[in-house]
Amino acid sequence: MRTAMLSPEPLAQLQTLLGPRLSTSASDRDLHGRNETHFPHLPPAAVAYPETTAEVAALMQICAAHGVPVTAWGAGTSLEGHALPLKGGVSVDFARMNRVLSVHPEDMVVTVQPGITREALNTELRATGLFFPVDPGANASLGGMASTRASGTTAVRYGTMRDNVLALEVVLADGRVIRTGTAARKSSAGYDLTALFVGAEGTLGLITELTLRLQGQPEAVSAAVCAFPAMAPAVDTVIATIQSGIPMARIEFVDAATVAAFNARDAADMPEQPHLLVEFHGSPAAVAEQAERFGEIVADMGGEGFRWAHRPEDRAALWKMRHNAYYACLALRPGATAWVTDVCVPISRLAEAVEETAAEIAASILQGPILGHVGDGNFHAILLVEPGNSAEETEAKRLAANMAERALRLGGTITGEHGIGMGKLAYMSREHGEAWDLMALIKRALDPENLLNPGKTVQVT
Amino acid sequence: MRTAMLSPEPLAQLQTLLGPRLSTSASDRDLHGRNETHFPHLPPAAVAYPETTAEVAALMQICAAHGVPVTAWGAGTSLEGHALPLKGGVSVDFARMNRVLSVHPEDMVVTVQPGITREALNTELRATGLFFPVDPGANASLGGMASTRASGTTAVRYGTMRDNVLALEVVLADGRVIRTGTAARKSSAGYDLTALFVGAEGTLGLITELTLRLQGQPEAVSAAVCAFPAMAPAVDTVIATIQSGIPMARIEFVDAATVAAFNARDAADMPEQPHLLVEFHGSPAAVAEQAERFGEIVADMGGEGFRWAHRPEDRAALWKMRHNAYYACLALRPGATAWVTDVCVPISRLAEAVEETAAEIAASILQGPILGHVGDGNFHAILLVEPGNSAEETEAKRLAANMAERALRLGGTITGEHGIGMGKLAYMSREHGEAWDLMALIKRALDPENLLNPGKTVQVT
Repeated sequence: MRTAMLSPEPLAQLQTLLGPRLSTSASDRDLHGRNETHFPHLPPAAVAYPETTAEVAALMQICAAHGVPVTAWGAGTSLEGHALPLKGGVSVDFARMNRVLSVHPEDMVVTVQPGITREALNTELRATGLFFPVDPGANASLGGMASTRASGTTAVRYGTMRDNVLALEVVLADGRVIRTGTAARKSSAGYDLTALFVGAEGTLGLITELTLRLQGQPEAVSAAVCAFPAMAPAVDTVIATIQSGIPMARIEFVDAATVAAFNARDAADMPEQPHLLVEFHGSPAAVAEQAERFGEIVADMGGEGFRWAHRPEDRAALWKMRHNAYYACLALRPGATAWVTDVCVPISRLAEAVEETAAEIAASILQGPILGHVGDGNFHAILLVEPGNSAEETEAKRLAANMAERALRLGGTITGEHGIGMGKLAYMSREHGEAWDLMALIKRALDPENLLNPGKTVQVT
Repeated sequence: MRTAMLSPEPLAQLQTLLGPRLSTSASDRDLHGRNETHFPHLPPAAVAYPETTAEVAALMQICAAHGVPVTAWGAGTSLEGHALPLKGGVSVDFARMNRVLSVHPEDMVVTVQPGITREALNTELRATGLFFPVDPGANASLGGMASTRASGTTAVRYGTMRDNVLALEVVLADGRVIRTGTAARKSSAGYDLTALFVGAEGTLGLITELTLRLQGQPEAVSAAVCAFPAMAPAVDTVIATIQSGIPMARIEFVDAATVAAFNARDAADMPEQPHLLVEFHGSPAAVAEQAERFGEIVADMGGEGFRWAHRPEDRAALWKMRHNAYYACLALRPGATAWVTDVCVPISRLAEAVEETAAEIAASILQGPILGHVGDGNFHAILLVEPGNSAEETEAKRLAANMAERALRLGGTITGEHGIGMGKLAYMSREHGEAWDLMALIKRALDPENLLNPGKTVQVT
């Protein structure tokens, strides 16, 4: 059950532990009950702001002793209600654990606390010539990105959080502190616990430290946009590019409705057709060669209006526009809430998946631009819903459910990068069958009292 | 306890299930009690040769009902005694489940049965223009490679089995069949069960199907060897190459003793100094550029005798020599058994780790050439031991233990790619601390009767 207040004993112990960094103020609770999209307002009973792993461990011990649920909070940018405390209890806000602990340029790794955001990390890394490549768009915290197995525009080249987290420190449900992985680039020493905590959405432990792989800042970068008469030739272009071994750093698809949103908000002056946005990283000669070969493929596939963004400011504008697509789409319907859905399919089925989805949205009462990380087979629909309009909400639910079903039918997954949280729980059994029961077995083994972000990812009641 | 024979009831049921494909012949049992290195001969009570997942599931149900241990057998090439049935029972030989089930060139994925070997898979893929890149040297089975989280010479570019297994079908300890992952390139849908079974050494389930990522065969390939006056400049060359973003497809280190073994066995005529063996994949222009920039770094670091192998036959000879290093080293001491140890450290500590190890071996009574996957910080010592000479065996154990301790002290792991099996169990607690207990918790949750490859990876008694 959700409880609005902590009972006196754990409250007193947490206050002794954290002093004023244990807050029960209405504003703190209110803030940590909010989410980026359409989920209800669900404030925790208290918000903790630990500063050390030892404090997180002590907090967890207190909560375990009194049966108080604990939900981690990073930057609050997740899209499926992950950080909402379904059963109340304490939200652990990692904002004060936001330091870079060590950088090892020779090993190209960095160790950070979970509360640091991706932009802050890359700012701190600037002088090293290295960067952390995973880029979900939002300025998320690294702990949150690990917990949702985030990815985004650069995953086609650099991988997702699965590929870029080398090691973790984790506080378990009983307050024990463990370390998984090492700073070595690979290991065969036992079960891959790092991979188990990445994507577990805070249901198996609280991440208190992360060791991440870094990349060298590319010598040369080149970006381009091009239009296509339809979705299929755009996807064929991507398949041909991947097969020819051209290493794209990003390749993004936006549909005509998203382009219309760009034109309206950013005065982008793009033809209202499907587009690809692409970027190459490498040496100047390699980037020039990749760009030329990509241009040839685009021409073969009937792409039009190919434009390079050679200047850094033009590239920055291009990716800022892409990253603000969510807000541009929201602005298409002032006052609307966005239901942002996310599925991922084998790339050979992507055109089919997008076209069926677009046709269904076009036939519905809702607007819903479609865009995605086409190199991964991952796409999103941004369904614009009038808050409180139950007919529209029902329709958004139906469209999202059909997208998930369609992804499964085409051999894909119900979420490529947003995760399960509250929003996708209903489809987990359909995707995983008995493997979902296995997840519950693991959850019970690691968190027998179901205190860690209860109600998310798995079903253990 | 190890039991030499199956009791009559499970034996009869397994014979009914599999007919002549359930063998209790002395030769079959003998063969499945052997290993590639120095572990004792431990034959199973019976050997099963299933042909379908349904047969594996039924076999597992019978064994579960009668408490019979089950150990998977791929190609028998593992190096830490993984496939030896410590508690007897049934060895499941996947030799008859060795088919390619489907190839999807557009998605660059293939689905295979676990018994297919890496060379057979790549032969079948040849016409597609695609290949499976993970290359541990031995012609291992894909099920075994997944179970040991194998990697090898190409991991620096293409990753390990962790990175290249997209989805699995697994028979659990109670005979249930589950599927993990999909053919989509990424997913955020719940716990990463695929990663949990990859590297679990058959202790959590029996892999009956694998969906793997493929790569396009590179248009151009270029390989080279160069000598260095010592280990440190060779490692510095690798660090500088990685940092400058040059995508090496392979980069291997061999020490002077390994070169001596090549010279003796393959008439290689190389100077008896530390060497790097390197390969680049890409477009002709990209490979040429990479090669040129690499050559500059080598020259800066004092490398000598740089030689390119442009012709395919010269490259094949180079990598054949590297892959046969194990046998070349064995030939240095006829009649010896090799104790092959494997550790992995952050690359900044690699020179130190190799130099300390080499000095300790030089001061010992044993010969032990050192070689490794230098781009990953992963290296091996091949300790040559006279079978039955207990002073030498004690010394080999001491040297291997010190290598593991050294790797941990330098921030690394006790095994980069060979796995735990029987050989590394003693160091698991030192590497993982309480995280090893967590592995045991997971093992107990998934295999409560400890029937799957009991005694490996985790300690649950």
